[in-house]
Amino acid sequence: MKSTDLLVIGGSAGGILSATTARKAYGNIDITVIRNTEKVMVPCGIPYIYGTLHSTDKNVIPDAGLLDANIHLSIDQVTKIDPETKTVATEGNEIYQYKKLVIATGSLPIIPKFIPGHDLENVIPILKNQNYLNTVLEKVNAAENAVVIGGGFIGVEFAEQIKLLGKNVTLVELADACLWQAFDRSFTDEIENSMKENGVSVLTETKVKAIIGTEKVEAVELENGDKIKADLVILALGVKPNAVLAEAAGIKLNERGAIIVDQYTRTSDPDVFAVGDCAEKKCFFTGKDAPVLLASTAAMEAKIAGCNAFQLRQVRENKGTISAFSTKVFGRTYAAAGLTESKADEEGFSIIKGEFTTMDRHPGSLPGMQKISIKLMFAKCSGVLLGAQISGGDSVGEIINILSLAIQKGATAGELNTFQVATHPLITASPIAYPINAAAMNAIAANCSALNEGLKI
Amino acid sequence: MKSTDLLVIGGSAGGILSATTARKAYGNIDITVIRNTEKVMVPCGIPYIYGTLHSTDKNVIPDAGLLDANIHLSIDQVTKIDPETKTVATEGNEIYQYKKLVIATGSLPIIPKFIPGHDLENVIPILKNQNYLNTVLEKVNAAENAVVIGGGFIGVEFAEQIKLLGKNVTLVELADACLWQAFDRSFTDEIENSMKENGVSVLTETKVKAIIGTEKVEAVELENGDKIKADLVILALGVKPNAVLAEAAGIKLNERGAIIVDQYTRTSDPDVFAVGDCAEKKCFFTGKDAPVLLASTAAMEAKIAGCNAFQLRQVRENKGTISAFSTKVFGRTYAAAGLTESKADEEGFSIIKGEFTTMDRHPGSLPGMQKISIKLMFAKCSGVLLGAQISGGDSVGEIINILSLAIQKGATAGELNTFQVATHPLITASPIAYPINAAAMNAIAANCSALNEGLKI
Repeated sequence: MKSTDLLVIGGSAGGILSATTARKAYGNIDITVIRNTEKVMVPCGIPYIYGTLHSTDKNVIPDAGLLDANIHLSIDQVTKIDPETKTVATEGNEIYQYKKLVIATGSLPIIPKFIPGHDLENVIPILKNQNYLNTVLEKVNAAENAVVIGGGFIGVEFAEQIKLLGKNVTLVELADACLWQAFDRSFTDEIENSMKENGVSVLTETKVKAIIGTEKVEAVELENGDKIKADLVILALGVKPNAVLAEAAGIKLNERGAIIVDQYTRTSDPDVFAVGDCAEKKCFFTGKDAPVLLASTAAMEAKIAGCNAFQLRQVRENKGTISAFSTKVFGRTYAAAGLTESKADEEGFSIIKGEFTTMDRHPGSLPGMQKISIKLMFAKCSGVLLGAQISGGDSVGEIINILSLAIQKGATAGELNTFQVATHPLITASPIAYPINAAAMNAIAANCSALNEGLKI
Repeated sequence: MKSTDLLVIGGSAGGILSATTARKAYGNIDITVIRNTEKVMVPCGIPYIYGTLHSTDKNVIPDAGLLDANIHLSIDQVTKIDPETKTVATEGNEIYQYKKLVIATGSLPIIPKFIPGHDLENVIPILKNQNYLNTVLEKVNAAENAVVIGGGFIGVEFAEQIKLLGKNVTLVELADACLWQAFDRSFTDEIENSMKENGVSVLTETKVKAIIGTEKVEAVELENGDKIKADLVILALGVKPNAVLAEAAGIKLNERGAIIVDQYTRTSDPDVFAVGDCAEKKCFFTGKDAPVLLASTAAMEAKIAGCNAFQLRQVRENKGTISAFSTKVFGRTYAAAGLTESKADEEGFSIIKGEFTTMDRHPGSLPGMQKISIKLMFAKCSGVLLGAQISGGDSVGEIINILSLAIQKGATAGELNTFQVATHPLITASPIAYPINAAAMNAIAANCSALNEGLKI
């Protein structure tokens, strides 16, 4: 039997940061991480193995962060958590005694068992295991005609990366737009048009009836009867929490099978924390269930768990996910945070919105210039920022984080209109047309106009 | 006599945004902008005329923003403001009657009259006039040996751009580091080393004794007696407010010659506003005089003036400058906001700091990866962010604006450690090592360790 102060199950973002944060927070305690793979894949990097890195070894999270922090690392599969004795058993016949436990077991891809042929050869769900992803690399390289089922981030990114290899790629999405959970129509249109211009066949409002083939996949049949030739199918229908160990241990799950946690990431067992994809997610604005599973959310939760494992040290409770996304598709970056306009409508928020388009250099004649389009949504009466969507060059990847912080700090349209920014010709928009400032002004302008009626100047 | 509701003197960032904001805020009023140049240069773009754009025409602020907003534009030189009659007279013999006036007359370069030879031919202060800058373009292109006097942003950027043309360039700075007003030593060292590696001769703690030549400059003589061969000298000793018209009109100036304004940018005359470089600047943290003249500060002030010109419409008072800077030198971006550590010490702030270095892609094997180094400073007891410095790739240009907002919203180390961000392999650091989160954690860790003494886990 091994004894450790803090035991972490899981070696990706949530597990690593729970351990390293606890080291920083508590100093010289004993910390152990158990994970079931020799190497850990950068989860969000997986699509880029295929069209950019061409190797899984280039997509490994280095262990240096754990080892430098003097954290014990065990490559093993946990088979059982026993909250009564505060022990964990493994396939390698080890028993670990813990004082506090963090469960960071992540998620598993959703397998569409309702689609006939979902288990044919070359029909590929995206698991995060390196050996598995190596076999996928061979299959992707050998393929000629790929179909991606699901138009979320993973689906769109796989479609783009496989297209970069010169393959025929068709993306099939059930809803009326790709990435509809993150973006409103003007942005999803921009993304879909870019994909089409770059040769990806994008089929929205389209249902897959069956995946056809004898041993290997040969085609994907749609509900309208069309058949798309395919020697490779990527299943990108989303992921579900992997909470098997927690459930077997009697830890409470929600209706979606995610581990129920409080605002300090504590589960129904007071000595057990859960972070990342296996833990439940709530909406920042409404507190409702919000199954948005992101490595960056896992990272935030892990920092809360690591810091509060042995004492509640700071009022740094988890206020819920703001659903902050970014992606880059065929050279343009798209990012979003907070509520979409359609989600805000659905929830009953009364909003004012401001939109603006500008250039990400000033003057615009500077090399590398890309157009930036931004949309901001504010609560009508309080003026508090509810949501943001942007497209543009690479800088959008961090502009969205200004807005992520703005949402989390309750910034208003007035504050965002006049907040001071650093600008520079080669790397940002002009201070005269800084996109956040300008879109906030446009949101305010509608309200101002009402003030003007009857105004004598 | 022409009559207008809002008259704006000055056509750069402050003037343009005062006018366009008033249009959005007040709807159908009469607005007039008077400026003294046919075209307006992007002020921060001026160094990039020389090594990147090779043309002043590519560095023009388009008039479309003003014209689309139905703002009258007059190319003329104002000669007198008469607050008694609320009129403005011009060289073109026009009289404008205004209801409200915005003065946005900018700044002028400091001419070092104490240096003998400062008025020789090819000794060049940086004026913002296009025709003048065209003559500078010819002189720069013809030069072989350039000396830049002054190691602030303009000096460093000119030195880099002239070096890109293959000239010999020497930068002379009186203080012990270039850019010392924005950065602490580890960052100024990085910048100076990069300049030296790229062939710029950087001389700090160096005083110019004289500029030598008969008609044209031939050399720069230093106080230690060394002479640097020079056929071009760029004077980059900073700028001073251009408040001549305001002063003549009896509007109150401060000791530095800047127009005194209140938190709504109103001058000592209640119908006259002043924004941008000609108006006084105060420090966000201390309220003290802070002569940091930036187009982005001008933009913020102009939005306050434009919105509040006829009514104080929102509590959007000017809380002072946070000194948010960014620049790019030989392919790396450097940015800062708030107090430097040395300034914080000087003011008597007790700080905790957190530093962190990571990569701006994840995995780091992705193309275009650059190292990011970040330093955050927080008030020791409240944990409120006081200052930030970063170096890295282009994304630093917007990361600094997350921190600019954080300063303005009083964000704490705890909040910045766990604030949710969007991350993506191709455009940001890893969520495990997001630089703001991680540096904030490092700042917290020191405080945490005190909590650990005697802790039984």
